[in-house]
Amino acid sequence: MQVVVPFDPQSPKTRLAGVLDPTERKRFARAMLRDVLDAITATGMAPTVLSTATLDIDAETRLDERPLTSAVNAALEDAGSTPVAVVMADLALATPAALSELFETEDDIVLARGIGGGTNALVARHPDFRVDYHGASYRDHHAVADAVGASTAEIDSYRLGMDIDEPEDLAELLLHGDGHAARWLRTAGVRLVEEQGRVSVGREPIPVTTTAESDAADD
Amino acid sequence: MQVVVPFDPQSPKTRLAGVLDPTERKRFARAMLRDVLDAITATGMAPTVLSTATLDIDAETRLDERPLTSAVNAALEDAGSTPVAVVMADLALATPAALSELFETEDDIVLARGIGGGTNALVARHPDFRVDYHGASYRDHHAVADAVGASTAEIDSYRLGMDIDEPEDLAELLLHGDGHAARWLRTAGVRLVEEQGRVSVGREPIPVTTTAESDAADD
Repeated sequence: MQVVVPFDPQSPKTRLAGVLDPTERKRFARAMLRDVLDAITATGMAPTVLSTATLDIDAETRLDERPLTSAVNAALEDAGSTPVAVVMADLALATPAALSELFETEDDIVLARGIGGGTNALVARHPDFRVDYHGASYRDHHAVADAVGASTAEIDSYRLGMDIDEPEDLAELLLHGDGHAARWLRTAGVRLVEEQGRVSVGREPIPVTTTAESDAADD
Repeated sequence: MQVVVPFDPQSPKTRLAGVLDPTERKRFARAMLRDVLDAITATGMAPTVLSTATLDIDAETRLDERPLTSAVNAALEDAGSTPVAVVMADLALATPAALSELFETEDDIVLARGIGGGTNALVARHPDFRVDYHGASYRDHHAVADAVGASTAEIDSYRLGMDIDEPEDLAELLLHGDGHAARWLRTAGVRLVEEQGRVSVGREPIPVTTTAESDAADD
């Protein structure tokens, strides 16, 4: 099985602009990527980063400047009859256990839903399956699987379901994460704020040298 | 094992006020409760509704007017050495499979996280464990379990993690639900709205007789 992790190192995580500046967003996205690659590697698989730009990272990298859907479909086509897993680079809560269940479920198409209708991870073992990540892709991927006559399984995982895109997602990472990205956030002064209902995040004023200027947290 | 489902029939789901009026919120909360009770029953367990007011429903009901935390702790105390499961009444995406994993995991304390720091479901098999649902209860429940020397397990379930509290949660129900509550929402004209990023919901103008005035959708 090929395990592909699409990644855009250039302007990642724009929806976090209210909490992190552009340089910080790049560092944070990179820390999440490392968590995802570590979790995949811990399952025994060797991930390939499908990057829109050159990337200095200790993992196999394939350059593809096209948008996400086109790049992933090219990877599916190139793979021929080899199964392909596609795991998003912002699943910073992913664990080896959750990913193993994804990889080991033996249907033609295995889907892990993301909050808000996305498809956070999938495995494709059918030559005619193609992705379309626009809109509510989870439903669309079910429909595509049905249309090509592929059997489908769903993975019920909170850890794979929480992609980190919006400021409130940072609370999930602070609550349940213990990897590079969670440590980076804590060092950057992002803190849980408890109010009525669900927790959110705020940011403490901290010395400049411990945040954007430094890689200290990115260890 | 006792399976307790706390429920407030009087003024439920106030955070949905932007989408549903008070009468609709009561009907919707009731439809979600039915989904939760159905899923529990399908695991072979017999749920008890722990209700703050009298309730006409086809399930065993125990009246306790106290706030959630006090009522659940009284149930834990009364149970003595009998294991107790506590399942929130708004887990309209819960499946028998996800609940079976919760019930069958054999640690002293088994926790299913909810989005935003909550504890959506738990099993307690330790006489000294007590709940506190205020704030980020998931962390607090871990700490309580540690303090009383109880072993703890986490359930990794998206379906148990999505309690339906906020308008954006309705999108999850429309995307992934097929029970009473999802049907009620669809009949009430609540629809998915696809924009950039995550899907949200909107509401169609529909004839009055098919919504709050009628129980037709609540079947």
